[in-house]
Amino acid sequence: MDEFGLINKIQKLENISHSSTKVGIGDDAAVFTPTSGKDIVTCVDTLTEGVHFTRETMEPSDIGYKALAVNISDIAAMGAVPVYYLVTIAVPKDWTDDEILELYEGMQQLARNENVQLIGGDSVTSKEGLYLSVTVIGEVESGKARLRSHAEVGDVVFVTGDLGGSAAGLHQLLAGKPVDEHWKIAHQKPRMHTAFAYEISRSPWRVALNDISDGLASESWEIAESSHVEIELLEEYIPLSDGLHEHFGYQKAIEMALTGGEDFQLLGTVARDNWQQLQTIAKHLGERVTMIGTVMRKGKGVVMRSQDQITPLSRGGYKHG
Amino acid sequence: MDEFGLINKIQKLENISHSSTKVGIGDDAAVFTPTSGKDIVTCVDTLTEGVHFTRETMEPSDIGYKALAVNISDIAAMGAVPVYYLVTIAVPKDWTDDEILELYEGMQQLARNENVQLIGGDSVTSKEGLYLSVTVIGEVESGKARLRSHAEVGDVVFVTGDLGGSAAGLHQLLAGKPVDEHWKIAHQKPRMHTAFAYEISRSPWRVALNDISDGLASESWEIAESSHVEIELLEEYIPLSDGLHEHFGYQKAIEMALTGGEDFQLLGTVARDNWQQLQTIAKHLGERVTMIGTVMRKGKGVVMRSQDQITPLSRGGYKHG
Repeated sequence: MDEFGLINKIQKLENISHSSTKVGIGDDAAVFTPTSGKDIVTCVDTLTEGVHFTRETMEPSDIGYKALAVNISDIAAMGAVPVYYLVTIAVPKDWTDDEILELYEGMQQLARNENVQLIGGDSVTSKEGLYLSVTVIGEVESGKARLRSHAEVGDVVFVTGDLGGSAAGLHQLLAGKPVDEHWKIAHQKPRMHTAFAYEISRSPWRVALNDISDGLASESWEIAESSHVEIELLEEYIPLSDGLHEHFGYQKAIEMALTGGEDFQLLGTVARDNWQQLQTIAKHLGERVTMIGTVMRKGKGVVMRSQDQITPLSRGGYKHG
Repeated sequence: MDEFGLINKIQKLENISHSSTKVGIGDDAAVFTPTSGKDIVTCVDTLTEGVHFTRETMEPSDIGYKALAVNISDIAAMGAVPVYYLVTIAVPKDWTDDEILELYEGMQQLARNENVQLIGGDSVTSKEGLYLSVTVIGEVESGKARLRSHAEVGDVVFVTGDLGGSAAGLHQLLAGKPVDEHWKIAHQKPRMHTAFAYEISRSPWRVALNDISDGLASESWEIAESSHVEIELLEEYIPLSDGLHEHFGYQKAIEMALTGGEDFQLLGTVARDNWQQLQTIAKHLGERVTMIGTVMRKGKGVVMRSQDQITPLSRGGYKHG
């Protein structure tokens, strides 16, 4: 890797430029002026070659896109708007400069779509496998962050979009068979829900939010634990990705929704009185939201109600784990 | 690595808690309220096993300390105060949970000294070698960040502390010989200069600042390039670490100061009229500052004046490179 030549090329990629940025890339640190009356929201998440992706299932540009996407999704899950990002990359010998540039271009594509500015980073060499760690910094109206702990008894549990598509895409990519396009996109370039999250944050309603990175079961547990409540999901209401049932059979399809993960949909709860308005907002933004359950009572845990039974759900789905 | 067990232990380490923090570790992202009238300053830097450190020369706690230190030093070099940090760690099989915990404890020791709160992070597995990437977020009075581009013709060039100690420590550690304690500390647990940087940021003076991570030559070049000036350093004025000259000989000692790097001293320029006051501030804080040169003229580059000659200095020191 010719580090300086590559950095020059990366810096020539089109980058969002916020007026609040006083110093971007090129000094010891970046400097920006936070918006008055807003809180800062920040997170970091890492993709690792061989663990979170392989070269067989993801193009360099997909890897870049997704490393930023997982973090933007976390910011959205706080009801916040992403504004800046920083990147750490560890590059092994078997990646060419052109591939690294494609990876950055994949990130910058998403960054331009989401109006997020690259303000810093660091590149090092890796002995084996690529590591891509992204820090995103966003803003939210002061006191309006939507936490996992906000769920209350009686709330509607809802989810954006549909589930299981990313797992289906990965399954087909690994099998080396033809891949359905919508599943490929769900896995490689998941759609972000920042506009919807932003509208929720502007609303006066109490909303608990989480993004679905580890599967519906695990994320429901996180809300249940943080809010000290028991959540009941309704199996027949879970929006499965188009064709998932037909392709994999019903039981496998449900398991993919519960545990496949990486759908990056938003899972939330809202008071029953505000559910209709939340649907209206979603509709305006072209987001589909589905009621998939209820916050039943004080407690801790998740159960699944299907037509004929109620089954405790572990973080790992129907399997106990 | 038992990820959840380890995360529990890490979360039990004593952590600074700022009143401005609304959400720390445990939701999708951290949330804090920025201080009114301040700019946010942020950077990320990564230590890699086998490149930036080896197990032979650094204890786990040193590695943790240093990964945070290199970033705190960058924040200080902006005249800013570090407030929060986030950590990404990629852990290979040959590290035990206890060693990882020691590493975090090393970070948290420095974090407590510097009043910096851990607010987020991510841990993944590594195929080979440990990666430790730290993002630090700090604050500075709006418009008061001290940039590399602030140098002007006539300025005094100064440096805190002394130079070459980290390189000397590394040299002795690699040689497997007894290590002088002050060089060991310079290499493994470099002292931070945040209090001095903060006092500079509170002053009304124009100051250019950079931290010495890559050696005096390289950092002088960065100021010269950013400020479009030529800097003249005075070889005899460069404060060498105690015993460096005696141990390594004069020429080698100067090269270690110029190119050894990792001293994490602050290199700066200030108008000649403010130099005395800056020295007074430093004295109050127990910081030694030394005048080591002058901003000579408009231009670009660094020259070294010694008793008998003036030599152009490259980023790589006296060697051309």
